[in-house]
Amino acid sequence: MGSFESVHEIGKRAKAAAGILASLPAEVKDNALFRAADALEIETNAILSANAVDFENAKNGGMTGALLDRLMLDRNRVCQMAEGLRAVAKLADPVGEVIQSWNRPNGLQINKVRVPIGVIGIIYEARPNVTADAAGLCLKAGNACILRGGSEAIESNKAIAGIMASAAEEAGVPKSAIQLIETTDRESAAELMRMNDCVDALIPRGGAGLIRKVVETATVPVIETGVGNCHVYVDAAADLDMAHNIVMNAKTQRPGVCNAMETLLVDEKVAEKFLPMMLDSLARAGVEIRGCEKTRVLWQAAAPASEDDYYAEFLALVLAVKVVSGVGEAVEHIAKYGTKHSETIVTNDSEAARFFEQNVDAAVVYVNASTRFTDGFEFGFGAELGISTQKLHARGPMGLAEITTYKYVVRGSGQVRV
Amino acid sequence: MGSFESVHEIGKRAKAAAGILASLPAEVKDNALFRAADALEIETNAILSANAVDFENAKNGGMTGALLDRLMLDRNRVCQMAEGLRAVAKLADPVGEVIQSWNRPNGLQINKVRVPIGVIGIIYEARPNVTADAAGLCLKAGNACILRGGSEAIESNKAIAGIMASAAEEAGVPKSAIQLIETTDRESAAELMRMNDCVDALIPRGGAGLIRKVVETATVPVIETGVGNCHVYVDAAADLDMAHNIVMNAKTQRPGVCNAMETLLVDEKVAEKFLPMMLDSLARAGVEIRGCEKTRVLWQAAAPASEDDYYAEFLALVLAVKVVSGVGEAVEHIAKYGTKHSETIVTNDSEAARFFEQNVDAAVVYVNASTRFTDGFEFGFGAELGISTQKLHARGPMGLAEITTYKYVVRGSGQVRV
Repeated sequence: MGSFESVHEIGKRAKAAAGILASLPAEVKDNALFRAADALEIETNAILSANAVDFENAKNGGMTGALLDRLMLDRNRVCQMAEGLRAVAKLADPVGEVIQSWNRPNGLQINKVRVPIGVIGIIYEARPNVTADAAGLCLKAGNACILRGGSEAIESNKAIAGIMASAAEEAGVPKSAIQLIETTDRESAAELMRMNDCVDALIPRGGAGLIRKVVETATVPVIETGVGNCHVYVDAAADLDMAHNIVMNAKTQRPGVCNAMETLLVDEKVAEKFLPMMLDSLARAGVEIRGCEKTRVLWQAAAPASEDDYYAEFLALVLAVKVVSGVGEAVEHIAKYGTKHSETIVTNDSEAARFFEQNVDAAVVYVNASTRFTDGFEFGFGAELGISTQKLHARGPMGLAEITTYKYVVRGSGQVRV
Repeated sequence: MGSFESVHEIGKRAKAAAGILASLPAEVKDNALFRAADALEIETNAILSANAVDFENAKNGGMTGALLDRLMLDRNRVCQMAEGLRAVAKLADPVGEVIQSWNRPNGLQINKVRVPIGVIGIIYEARPNVTADAAGLCLKAGNACILRGGSEAIESNKAIAGIMASAAEEAGVPKSAIQLIETTDRESAAELMRMNDCVDALIPRGGAGLIRKVVETATVPVIETGVGNCHVYVDAAADLDMAHNIVMNAKTQRPGVCNAMETLLVDEKVAEKFLPMMLDSLARAGVEIRGCEKTRVLWQAAAPASEDDYYAEFLALVLAVKVVSGVGEAVEHIAKYGTKHSETIVTNDSEAARFFEQNVDAAVVYVNASTRFTDGFEFGFGAELGISTQKLHARGPMGLAEITTYKYVVRGSGQVRV
């Protein structure tokens, strides 16, 4: 059986499973999640053995550093996956909520009801925990998922998805609610991306290259996630101590994630007072500074920032810095270089804040807070399947509601159109 | 200047215009719509002259019947376009609505605010009234639009878009808020569909072929619209008089539109009583019947229905008919052949109704009402940009709210993440 055929078979099974999942009671889905959590813990040894194979292969293949760390599982990380599933099980079921209801003059009652999307394809890289997280969230929201992880994590993913699917089946959920594509060649991914008859939405999770590939290839609707070139703009009217805290947090608290700051913009009116102290602190924290000319006059140790630096999502302890003439230029800079993810203004001037809020086009616009809060848990959603950076369907952190859709249920008494 | 270059120039101008449109007061947008309406009426002669050129070309090119009728404008149709714009102007501005607002334990205030999508590309066929409708709805919701109509209507579209853009400009709206791509070759459409740096969403309006082409080609997010293979299922527990009225209405009141019924499903328990009378009535109304074997036993004049007939969106006085074993088989038939548009059950059995509502996956599921109500005006939206048949972003009739998105505005007092 070729890979084309088998991916389509997976798709057809997922579609059939989605039909059943859509009307499963919350208790069945929750029970399945608890069983899957228990099973992951019980089968920890099997998962770790599988992961050891992936880890060896990756190391032999030359993988190093953060990537290798993301691939690696240990007892604690398996427990975290299980706890994640239990937390999702405890959230309210989004399915069936009547979002709106109204009556028409002709007597028709229109109900807008929340329903699962159906079949969701998740395309991701070498982080095996995504397998458990994504499958759990999809199941809770009544969606069948088709997982397509990176080849580096294939043995780990097979173990995790297999254990979860079996546990879910024991709880009365169709086994095909959770499926992994085991062939990791390009063709299997491309087939998933163009299987419009079976797949309702695709969510790529990974770096900019993966996202771009999916957007270029897919005919199935895509929810773009995650690329974050985030800015903090320190306004002339900023509380500079607050600005210092926010900048340090946004850049250094966890530099490898999409909601970390990549470029600092500073109003020229406070640059002389603010930048030398700020950049000293950042440098002490190990941050490499790449600045505009004005920045380099104020803080000579800065390397010159190139045009590419302003476009970059460093995901590392590197920061581009630019002195701007005010909130107007800050907004223009963000419009040109930003990725519509998370943008902060630090100011006590309500007019500047209002201007920034209104004119910055991003999923999340902050006044006086760190960009690092763009996160489903920090927003209170209790879960997160990624951060959408596109404008259709969902924007910003995606929780359970964001992986549902709605249908209209219209009840009449024989109405016809005149 | 090549077409590639010029389409991209249009895109860049649209993006710049969208930045301004997003924060324009409602009064400015409404005034622009009223002025555009007046201008269309004042310039009726110019529009009709342009349309006469299109009409002659189309007729000489062999266009006939309904297509030619859709292309043709007269004084009354121009007035209707103007009245449509005035009606849109009078609707509430969707932009700026705070959809939700909550506080987090750390003091962050999270606001989910409705904002325009940005730049919307509309790709459509030979109906020049779409130019005015789509431009008006986009403007009202604060979106810049890039219109790409069919070559058959190019002169009409140039006249209408040009008049509207100039009128809008006089009211203080950027002229590039309404732009038409004047080159109607394939390349200009393909370029629009892949211009992710300037276009936020694409809405194709037209037949199944156009929709498929756009889905296949686009890298910009698409909202699929309009293909409707709609069913009416007459249950064993139906009021047969009501069923007769609904079936007649769904099939014959306006057969050429996407929410018309294409296949009638009848429970075998009432087929003998219902079908002969029903099919007599339909035949008298000029409907050609293509039935399953059981149908043809009960009503011999029926032609045999092929597999293709069950998949077909006839958009004409042709009906496929199938006798089914009950609501379960009806739901399965709809899942296999339907296009997730509009589906009706006629029944007085609340259990059958509930099963149908829950298990039919469509934008609109009706109990005891005609499929013909799937329409923005009938839903009370006061406007319609099309019927979405996909599951992301919007489903069913799309009014003004459906051509907006949201952003989060998060206000803090120096919060950082721990």
